[in-house]
Amino acid sequence: MRIALAQINCHIGNLSLNADLIEKNLSRAKESRADLVIFPELAICGYPPMDLLESEEFITNCEKAIADIASRCTGITAIIGGPSRNPSLKGKNLFNSAFVIADGKITDVVHKTLLPTYDVFDEYRYFEPNREFKTIKINQTKIALTICEDIWNEEDDPMYVFSPLEKLKDQGFTMIINIAASPFDYNHREKRISILSRNAIKYNTPLVYVNHTGAQNDLIFDGGSMVMEYSGAVLKELPYFESDLSFFDFNLLTSFPATKPTEKYERIRKALVCGIRDYFQKCGFKNATLGLSGGIDSALVAALATEALGPEHVHPVLMPSAFSSEHSVSDAMELASNLGLNATTIPINKIFDTFIEETKASFRDKPFDLTEENIQSRIRGTILMALANKHGYVLLNTSNKSELAVGYGTLYGDMAGGISVIGDLYKTEVYELCNHLNLKKQIIPKNIITKAPSAELRPGQKDSDSLPDYEILDRLLFMILEQKQGREGLLKYGFDKSLVEKVIQLVNRSEFKRFQFAPILRVSTKAFGSGRRMPLVAKYT
Amino acid sequence: MRIALAQINCHIGNLSLNADLIEKNLSRAKESRADLVIFPELAICGYPPMDLLESEEFITNCEKAIADIASRCTGITAIIGGPSRNPSLKGKNLFNSAFVIADGKITDVVHKTLLPTYDVFDEYRYFEPNREFKTIKINQTKIALTICEDIWNEEDDPMYVFSPLEKLKDQGFTMIINIAASPFDYNHREKRISILSRNAIKYNTPLVYVNHTGAQNDLIFDGGSMVMEYSGAVLKELPYFESDLSFFDFNLLTSFPATKPTEKYERIRKALVCGIRDYFQKCGFKNATLGLSGGIDSALVAALATEALGPEHVHPVLMPSAFSSEHSVSDAMELASNLGLNATTIPINKIFDTFIEETKASFRDKPFDLTEENIQSRIRGTILMALANKHGYVLLNTSNKSELAVGYGTLYGDMAGGISVIGDLYKTEVYELCNHLNLKKQIIPKNIITKAPSAELRPGQKDSDSLPDYEILDRLLFMILEQKQGREGLLKYGFDKSLVEKVIQLVNRSEFKRFQFAPILRVSTKAFGSGRRMPLVAKYT
Repeated sequence: MRIALAQINCHIGNLSLNADLIEKNLSRAKESRADLVIFPELAICGYPPMDLLESEEFITNCEKAIADIASRCTGITAIIGGPSRNPSLKGKNLFNSAFVIADGKITDVVHKTLLPTYDVFDEYRYFEPNREFKTIKINQTKIALTICEDIWNEEDDPMYVFSPLEKLKDQGFTMIINIAASPFDYNHREKRISILSRNAIKYNTPLVYVNHTGAQNDLIFDGGSMVMEYSGAVLKELPYFESDLSFFDFNLLTSFPATKPTEKYERIRKALVCGIRDYFQKCGFKNATLGLSGGIDSALVAALATEALGPEHVHPVLMPSAFSSEHSVSDAMELASNLGLNATTIPINKIFDTFIEETKASFRDKPFDLTEENIQSRIRGTILMALANKHGYVLLNTSNKSELAVGYGTLYGDMAGGISVIGDLYKTEVYELCNHLNLKKQIIPKNIITKAPSAELRPGQKDSDSLPDYEILDRLLFMILEQKQGREGLLKYGFDKSLVEKVIQLVNRSEFKRFQFAPILRVSTKAFGSGRRMPLVAKYT
Repeated sequence: MRIALAQINCHIGNLSLNADLIEKNLSRAKESRADLVIFPELAICGYPPMDLLESEEFITNCEKAIADIASRCTGITAIIGGPSRNPSLKGKNLFNSAFVIADGKITDVVHKTLLPTYDVFDEYRYFEPNREFKTIKINQTKIALTICEDIWNEEDDPMYVFSPLEKLKDQGFTMIINIAASPFDYNHREKRISILSRNAIKYNTPLVYVNHTGAQNDLIFDGGSMVMEYSGAVLKELPYFESDLSFFDFNLLTSFPATKPTEKYERIRKALVCGIRDYFQKCGFKNATLGLSGGIDSALVAALATEALGPEHVHPVLMPSAFSSEHSVSDAMELASNLGLNATTIPINKIFDTFIEETKASFRDKPFDLTEENIQSRIRGTILMALANKHGYVLLNTSNKSELAVGYGTLYGDMAGGISVIGDLYKTEVYELCNHLNLKKQIIPKNIITKAPSAELRPGQKDSDSLPDYEILDRLLFMILEQKQGREGLLKYGFDKSLVEKVIQLVNRSEFKRFQFAPILRVSTKAFGSGRRMPLVAKYT
């Protein structure tokens, strides 16, 4: 059997675009004499469709689109993910399904059994789990057709009480197909290969895996579709962060040279560039603005945005205040010049002074404090949003994960923006990624990387005045956020008790800020946003 | 059997406070010679605990707290909601459980079967559904102990494939107990009574229902615990929006006078006052600020906040601009005086002029547009946040549901604030609630209610310049949001086609604004926020 793997970049809700992508790939697969072409999970509507699934009209339109494609599908079999209605009165109204189409019609519909409902996933919100198990037959091959999570029930701590492949085992199958919507994190490729190979080995069959590529808001799909041998060896691996239609002929069983895995920061670079590019393209925007402070965070975001959108579409703004150091301006200008960006400068002194003058009476002679720092940050936010409004730009947020974690940022100030580019990178990872970008050529000026980080909101301010060293802070935050360690656990690792108390408190007390923050491009296993849902009025004892 | 219903106001994560509340009510119940005292669902940790449940330490602390209470519980039986660990390796790690305690120990643990995962609920994110069904025995009475959703599987379109009471039927039970965490909406009381009575009648038993009271962030729990006869008649109904410990003696079977249901706007008033008060109290704040524009939205929020916090704790700010009409200021001052509030005035003209001066070059001679309107709004947001920062106030947001729905508001400007008070009230409901508040005494000045709504961000601006009449808009929005009607459905109701297209587009295009909005006190069946999750990069075709 000759199989085509269609790794496509869908657009959520854009049924005509998705249907078009599917039809084009279907035609190309047929031209290349494939017997079967496979599309990802929920390909017709894009993933995750979220509460669009609650609209009757939306479901009807998805059904129509699949039926349309089916009616024109001859001479080849296709598998396409889409929502389907649950005919039973009981249970949720929908299934997350794989439609098998051939000979001008839908020949089989298989539903997803295991519905991920954790981290960024909410599938049981919409779908009824499948309870009927059957293999399908394509070209005389008996296939276990599964959808993403269906093969992810881990053996050491299974999240589900059974695995659908166990239910199918007795029916006998000689191939596993898995259509997926499995988002990127920087370790996800290895995890994925390990899970796929475990299934291939356990059931002693080859496995074909087809994933989405492209970013949808905070979630970045990296592709990495693949064909795996019964031994668990990868026979073919599709490219990452790219649309692709690749073929594998089981009659020939050619082995392809193994793909060399890319390094962590190269993966992250690709993911973030994809995240920015797709956010703009799918929202219909072309131009970005951002504040360039001369610091490392905004430098990195500017570099990534320039790669994603082109230098003519990135419009940085320098907004020095009385507290800005000289090198802030010169470093920022050097960066802009390295990237080929045309920077605007709008000093905030006069606006700040007017603010202080007008609010003086209401401040009742209280001393300079966080208030005045926040005013500066909010003036900058207002200027950036004004330029965004006036010229149709999108404001890129430049906060990093360490800052967001401890609440070191101003709501409506430097926390403003339509999309957070590096909000899932700890400060130490920001440095690493900058060094990675500088490998071939010095893009981020050396001084930006070597100088001590500062928000420059009062004279001589340094991050280290109020925060521990980022090396320590980030290790602690990783254990709190990614590893969900509590106070006791952290103390066992030898962290200083007062530091642990302080950081936990900072993380807890800043939930309200993150609640109002932009969507964050997700590159780790635990990003702030929909993957981490904390109560706001809670007391953490 | 003499039963005590303990309708308590928990604080999420505050285990020592919750345990204390439970112990105090337990002692009082014992003193009053109750045989059984019943606490709500997840009472030990508060509802919803959200991702706190993912912390091992948190679960251990919940277990300890329950065990502690149990060890001291003698001479009475108590039922307390809390999380428990799933002893099986398979499935999710936790159950949502009801602990039965007596004689100094935990005598039974019953788990929740139906896990609401829709709208604001995410229970399958954390919990494994129960699969073992047993009745419990307390004082010779065989009881079906259920948890909230367990009795809510609706017969006409059941969301679950079976009901736990059906599984228990054959074991025979003579009483249903339901511990709940069932949040308020303005029709919820009737819905609740109907569901409870359907169960009482179907199984021909009395039913005891115990709910939370008090607000947790966006969710407001109204209490309304009750005892119901086998006939479905309410025998006793606890008060709404109040902590209470009430007793019912099944040996005496006294009937209490029926509670007179309160009217929609009186319910909403109570809910919002409770929502504000608990938000402040549980977050440890005392003082609020808000902008008073002279319009109806801010007037209503000021009135509700004054009732919730006291006039000495509400600090309104008038921020007139060159576009503000005279009556805006005088109406706002009259309102402040009616409420006994001390208003501050900070004109924004000078700040605005400085902004325009400093950004002029970068605006490249483009004409006055939304940009300048947004700058005014963001200056106001910055001033309000500055006062909040300087004096430790919380900024109350004053946006209404109609504005939020169509994106008629400025992100980081009038959309700023820690909590949205009336973000779940359509503009027409804002008027109704103001009229309701004015019933006894004119609190909201008449002119505020009768004048045409305007944002006053450019000369002579009126809401009606860019939006349809609120009567029509709100009806349309209700059908889109609450009833999930699509384009086709709306046209069938006779709405103008171009209006339908326009409003749907406005709703879709403003998802990104609502994404960054404050938590909204929920009073309807479909509030913006966690109950409505829409993709941001989607194209809605």
